[in-house]
Amino acid sequence: MHPRMAELLRFVEEDLGYGDITTESVLEEEVAARAEVVAKEAGVLAGVEEALALLEHFNLKCTPLKQDGEEVAPGEVVLQVEGSARTILMLERVVLNLLMRMSGIATATRRLVNIAGRYGVRIAGTRKTTPGFRYFEKRAIALGGGDTHRLRLDDAVLIKDNHLALVELGEAVRRAKEAGFTRKVEVEVRSPEQALRALEAGADIVMLDNFSVEEAERAISLARERGSGAVIELSGGITPENIESYAKLRPDVISTGYITTRSAWLDMSLRLKR
Amino acid sequence: MHPRMAELLRFVEEDLGYGDITTESVLEEEVAARAEVVAKEAGVLAGVEEALALLEHFNLKCTPLKQDGEEVAPGEVVLQVEGSARTILMLERVVLNLLMRMSGIATATRRLVNIAGRYGVRIAGTRKTTPGFRYFEKRAIALGGGDTHRLRLDDAVLIKDNHLALVELGEAVRRAKEAGFTRKVEVEVRSPEQALRALEAGADIVMLDNFSVEEAERAISLARERGSGAVIELSGGITPENIESYAKLRPDVISTGYITTRSAWLDMSLRLKR
Amino acid sequence: MHPRMAELLRFVEEDLGYGDITTESVLEEEVAARAEVVAKEAGVLAGVEEALALLEHFNLKCTPLKQDGEEVAPGEVVLQVEGSARTILMLERVVLNLLMRMSGIATATRRLVNIAGRYGVRIAGTRKTTPGFRYFEKRAIALGGGDTHRLRLDDAVLIKDNHLALVELGEAVRRAKEAGFTRKVEVEVRSPEQALRALEAGADIVMLDNFSVEEAERAISLARERGSGAVIELSGGITPENIESYAKLRPDVISTGYITTRSAWLDMSLRLKR
Amino acid sequence: MHPRMAELLRFVEEDLGYGDITTESVLEEEVAARAEVVAKEAGVLAGVEEALALLEHFNLKCTPLKQDGEEVAPGEVVLQVEGSARTILMLERVVLNLLMRMSGIATATRRLVNIAGRYGVRIAGTRKTTPGFRYFEKRAIALGGGDTHRLRLDDAVLIKDNHLALVELGEAVRRAKEAGFTRKVEVEVRSPEQALRALEAGADIVMLDNFSVEEAERAISLARERGSGAVIELSGGITPENIESYAKLRPDVISTGYITTRSAWLDMSLRLKR
Amino acid sequence: MHPRMAELLRFVEEDLGYGDITTESVLEEEVAARAEVVAKEAGVLAGVEEALALLEHFNLKCTPLKQDGEEVAPGEVVLQVEGSARTILMLERVVLNLLMRMSGIATATRRLVNIAGRYGVRIAGTRKTTPGFRYFEKRAIALGGGDTHRLRLDDAVLIKDNHLALVELGEAVRRAKEAGFTRKVEVEVRSPEQALRALEAGADIVMLDNFSVEEAERAISLARERGSGAVIELSGGITPENIESYAKLRPDVISTGYITTRSAWLDMSLRLKR
Amino acid sequence: MHPRMAELLRFVEEDLGYGDITTESVLEEEVAARAEVVAKEAGVLAGVEEALALLEHFNLKCTPLKQDGEEVAPGEVVLQVEGSARTILMLERVVLNLLMRMSGIATATRRLVNIAGRYGVRIAGTRKTTPGFRYFEKRAIALGGGDTHRLRLDDAVLIKDNHLALVELGEAVRRAKEAGFTRKVEVEVRSPEQALRALEAGADIVMLDNFSVEEAERAISLARERGSGAVIELSGGITPENIESYAKLRPDVISTGYITTRSAWLDMSLRLKR
Repeated sequence: MHPRMAELLRFVEEDLGYGDITTESVLEEEVAARAEVVAKEAGVLAGVEEALALLEHFNLKCTPLKQDGEEVAPGEVVLQVEGSARTILMLERVVLNLLMRMSGIATATRRLVNIAGRYGVRIAGTRKTTPGFRYFEKRAIALGGGDTHRLRLDDAVLIKDNHLALVELGEAVRRAKEAGFTRKVEVEVRSPEQALRALEAGADIVMLDNFSVEEAERAISLARERGSGAVIELSGGITPENIESYAKLRPDVISTGYITTRSAWLDMSLRLKR
Repeated sequence: MHPRMAELLRFVEEDLGYGDITTESVLEEEVAARAEVVAKEAGVLAGVEEALALLEHFNLKCTPLKQDGEEVAPGEVVLQVEGSARTILMLERVVLNLLMRMSGIATATRRLVNIAGRYGVRIAGTRKTTPGFRYFEKRAIALGGGDTHRLRLDDAVLIKDNHLALVELGEAVRRAKEAGFTRKVEVEVRSPEQALRALEAGADIVMLDNFSVEEAERAISLARERGSGAVIELSGGITPENIESYAKLRPDVISTGYITTRSAWLDMSLRLKR
Repeated sequence: MHPRMAELLRFVEEDLGYGDITTESVLEEEVAARAEVVAKEAGVLAGVEEALALLEHFNLKCTPLKQDGEEVAPGEVVLQVEGSARTILMLERVVLNLLMRMSGIATATRRLVNIAGRYGVRIAGTRKTTPGFRYFEKRAIALGGGDTHRLRLDDAVLIKDNHLALVELGEAVRRAKEAGFTRKVEVEVRSPEQALRALEAGADIVMLDNFSVEEAERAISLARERGSGAVIELSGGITPENIESYAKLRPDVISTGYITTRSAWLDMSLRLKR
Repeated sequence: MHPRMAELLRFVEEDLGYGDITTESVLEEEVAARAEVVAKEAGVLAGVEEALALLEHFNLKCTPLKQDGEEVAPGEVVLQVEGSARTILMLERVVLNLLMRMSGIATATRRLVNIAGRYGVRIAGTRKTTPGFRYFEKRAIALGGGDTHRLRLDDAVLIKDNHLALVELGEAVRRAKEAGFTRKVEVEVRSPEQALRALEAGADIVMLDNFSVEEAERAISLARERGSGAVIELSGGITPENIESYAKLRPDVISTGYITTRSAWLDMSLRLKR
Repeated sequence: MHPRMAELLRFVEEDLGYGDITTESVLEEEVAARAEVVAKEAGVLAGVEEALALLEHFNLKCTPLKQDGEEVAPGEVVLQVEGSARTILMLERVVLNLLMRMSGIATATRRLVNIAGRYGVRIAGTRKTTPGFRYFEKRAIALGGGDTHRLRLDDAVLIKDNHLALVELGEAVRRAKEAGFTRKVEVEVRSPEQALRALEAGADIVMLDNFSVEEAERAISLARERGSGAVIELSGGITPENIESYAKLRPDVISTGYITTRSAWLDMSLRLKR
Repeated sequence: MHPRMAELLRFVEEDLGYGDITTESVLEEEVAARAEVVAKEAGVLAGVEEALALLEHFNLKCTPLKQDGEEVAPGEVVLQVEGSARTILMLERVVLNLLMRMSGIATATRRLVNIAGRYGVRIAGTRKTTPGFRYFEKRAIALGGGDTHRLRLDDAVLIKDNHLALVELGEAVRRAKEAGFTRKVEVEVRSPEQALRALEAGADIVMLDNFSVEEAERAISLARERGSGAVIELSGGITPENIESYAKLRPDVISTGYITTRSAWLDMSLRLKR
């Protein structure tokens, strides 16, 4: 039983409304069929678990040929499904939307992971996710090999420039650490000097935001000299094109909205057979 | 009162969890602030209405400087907001996610509309939308100047190849027309000949799916000769690069998943001022 | 799995509250029983699918003896159920309410369909449905042989007198057609002349609202002469008593709120056997 | 703030879907209008409070001319509303459905109350209500002057024939009284003798179900002789035609499904003025 | 199928968020395990049904060794569970919280029931329950042998001092009796004299609130002399220490918030075995 | 606008059902009243914000005399409310239940904080909270001066004995650290030696679970000698009676289920005045 089944069913309801009027008028109720979900592009799969959960919930028999996190080539079959033709067609679009959006994110993530991983650098996501769909997008990031980063506003402290416009950095870190001992405190900084202040204040993570490669290099070497155990995270304007130049600086993590806001969905289709 | 307020509040809850622990620990409760949402790229705005509805629901004072559907240039201020600094920061990410995803779709749509419009051709979306977020994505398409196309499986009949694998085209159209007189019947076809059969069967809309430019040209001229009042819709593989060659054929509509599955979010940020 | 199961379960919760205190106090937990749902009046069944879905969800074994859409005579058994006596009694009222309300609508619809059908005229419902229960009432109309007509405000355009109080008919139709190509445009008119204007403006459907038989006759013959392919719909004040005189005019459709607002529930009861 | 506002908003959502596409395409956003809800039949009003709550929630200005529970004559204005024309039309159908269904029940109830009241007999409803809409139907019964009777399975004990098929009457009453002291225990009986047994067992209410007038008379006089303080309730097959002959027997209460399962909606309409 | 399954699943979601990140990172997906829920204190069990329903919903195999309402000794195994180690650990806390809170209430209730029962006096709860969790707390009271008393504001009339500050007692009872015949009317009184007035007014239940033992004795003997059939309920400030002195007065019922507001949770733990 | 307003309204619905039948039958609609919420015991307030949010949502005028987190003495007025008597009485119980449960937790927390604080030791809660009510119980802990600790299974890693039954400690910590860099990794240990292994493995927090004072002392001094920056948390069996002997050992944190599972609700009442 998928722990988010109620949400998955709401997605069906969103697409279904009062019913699949095409299929209900065109096909007899008792027609059985087999179908395949096929990848039309190369990429990394995500959403297979959700697709199976939904299809099986409506009594269809499924055989996954690929698992979440696996690579898929164009033309490869992701899963086979068997049962009522009406039910298969009723669920087609929702299942494909889940698979295509999630796999698109997993694919973009894996691409960055493959580059950054050569330098021992992790890739992480952000909170730039489609409203109402974050759980699935964060899961796709993880399946692509990325770190989900903060899930919500309550699972880690992240002091950003908007906070620092209103309160001094050292004071902000002090207050945050007092507020809870189970969560890490991260500070977003705009200069190598501010990075040092964050480290001195005791930040667990320092995020170098929108740094040029040169500035980033200076900030990282200052931090490493200082011997801090803090995590160094690089963020802002990362793309597949420029990531290697940043990864070479060997920060601990590179986080990027790219994988959720600029990635294409991975194209797939469902082919029915009688 | 926004008719989807309950949904907007669920988006806040998704991001908020037990609270914005950063802001609550770092800022005093009574601090007031002003902030601006600023576009960082050129594009077409969507989501302004939703942003205002949310911000005002939490007692912030808003001044929109741009409206939904308007163009925005990099650096331009979209809206100003005033009130509790804590509340502004609590809502920042949700508001930006709404605006950025919706504006990204509106922008991609407008781009295609501008090309196709020169030939009197409409642009339409598809049901390839993020699960749980369709209402907002369809609205963004409309704000970009596109046609929402089917909202759900129940508001128009669309007989696709997966149906035609199981039932003969003419019979399918006949059954669909019998099932309801208030909804249009559309048929997705794969060849000019099939297009003709659909017209003969009485389809209200014929969708030429994945046609080459040459085939599309032949299908459209066959249809026009026949003098049918049916709408001719072109779909499949449309991109900003190839759309003009299809638009020149002057179908009635070009529909495309591109605007929801391959469009980038429009970058924006929120800047706080004390 | 019924696609509206969550809603069906809310209906149970509505009737159940903290539990069936009568049955829980009076019957031991382990008592098994058989029961039958019996029709007490002649009519057309609707809601059997929903009844079965609910009963089986709570692990009762069901045997339907009649199907949705079938006629039933007084005294006939609709379905048999077997299992925990407590569970059967817990669900009794909800199951009967679903069956009785839905079958009442199906029965009233069929009655009109039988009359109008003799003249090749369809029967359709309206949006006059019980708030929160529309899906089931629209389904009952379909099972009775009627057309559901608009499901919501978003699946077809219907320009009514309240719109025409504020905008000119031709302009209204023009705007509506521009707003979307996948939905039909219907106009409600009050006179034969207005009907002609609607046809000229390009309406897909013209609804003659509250016409006398004479006026309706004139409007229909004017429309037929004009050779329009538009659907002619008659509506307003239709009852089983007067429908034949309207059906004889051979409009395409007669729509009526009668079947949902003036139909009686079809009486049924559940008889328990140890 | 109406305590059922969330439910009322779900009713709007049910009718609205993605939006009122007619009104949005046909009317400009800024058009203001006035409108009146007018009764087309004589009856008793119910749902005015709900209508006002909804209309005001969407920022319309309302003036009720009639109150819930008041009588209305054909042509009389129930309420006036002023504001955005689009919003008025968006809410029209939901508001009318609430008012018409609820007023239909209130009207049917009042009719029976007026007859039975002459003999000092109360009218009560049953649990035969539209799934998902019970709260509003029970409220309509109360506004018509009736007693709501059980709201759910948990607010009073009602031992019915299906229970008595499995457990002896005296034992059933004994168990029910043991199970809770805050709720009354009612027994449904089929003969004057069984009525006496229920009284002896200590039932707080005895329901004579489907009794002929003669049998009912005998049962009531037996009960009165016995001097029991129990409430005598008559039920089953009551209609406006036969109620007086039962009321003359002066039971304490007559309960009937008629008011919810056989009553017609009270016809009303909304008239827009610029 | 537990009738409150949707609520139980919300409890899981509350604890789970985006997932059990510890177990998912630390244990392989396929690890199977067995586990036992063990009582660490003596008490009365409640929540076993809910625990089983949840565990089985997620495909774990359960063997209950104890039933709801049974006593348990420290170290005794309540239930055994077998299946995916990840799933067991994901559900551990929710299952324990249900069992511990509910069993704590059942245990406190049983303790009072054992004392009061020696004098033929019932124990009842109040509406002092944790918001959102009342169903389960009322069920725990019943499993402990107590009476649930009012479940909500709508299942019995209870006229309290705050009402009597605004309306005269006799008038209040008269109005309440008129308002509905299926529900009992209870009056909360502050003196023996007021108790008599309530009896004379026809109250079904009289609650002596915050009476000293002496006053309670006087009120009860006055009531008994009067020969009223009304239920005498004692309430206010009852604890395990003082209950016997009140029970000796043989009121019909003693109700107390103690069992929900001052009872300790019954300590239990879950022990995993590979 | 309270971010959890939808939840607060569900609490009202839980208590209200179809309405406050007592107040509606006994009081006229237009009666206005003033009321006070009064503390009957000394303690620390929590839930004032929620109470105000609810009362104001239903158009009552509120004046808080005390704030969340403040101490209150017996007899002191917490807040005053003015408006419809019916509305005040409708909300009375929900408001009191929120205040009493939350203030009970805040009071118990503050008591421990006052003792432990003398030694510079923090108090923290656990995930032992009432299902469905955790947000409010965690908030009460914070208002009492405690640390909320983990809110859910997803905001920090906590490797417990049940995990260590299946995987070696060092390996578990290594895997957890790899799984995410934004969350802290805590290990629950059963002996001083295991505590050292956890520190060596790089745990951010070590929880000494169910240690005697002597063992705890040894574990803490071993950890301090090692010079680790890890947080030392003590847990298991903490009560107001034994906490000082543990606090004297100066761990960083003492966490305890006592404050949510063994604390009494803080008694309050609402007094109405005309």
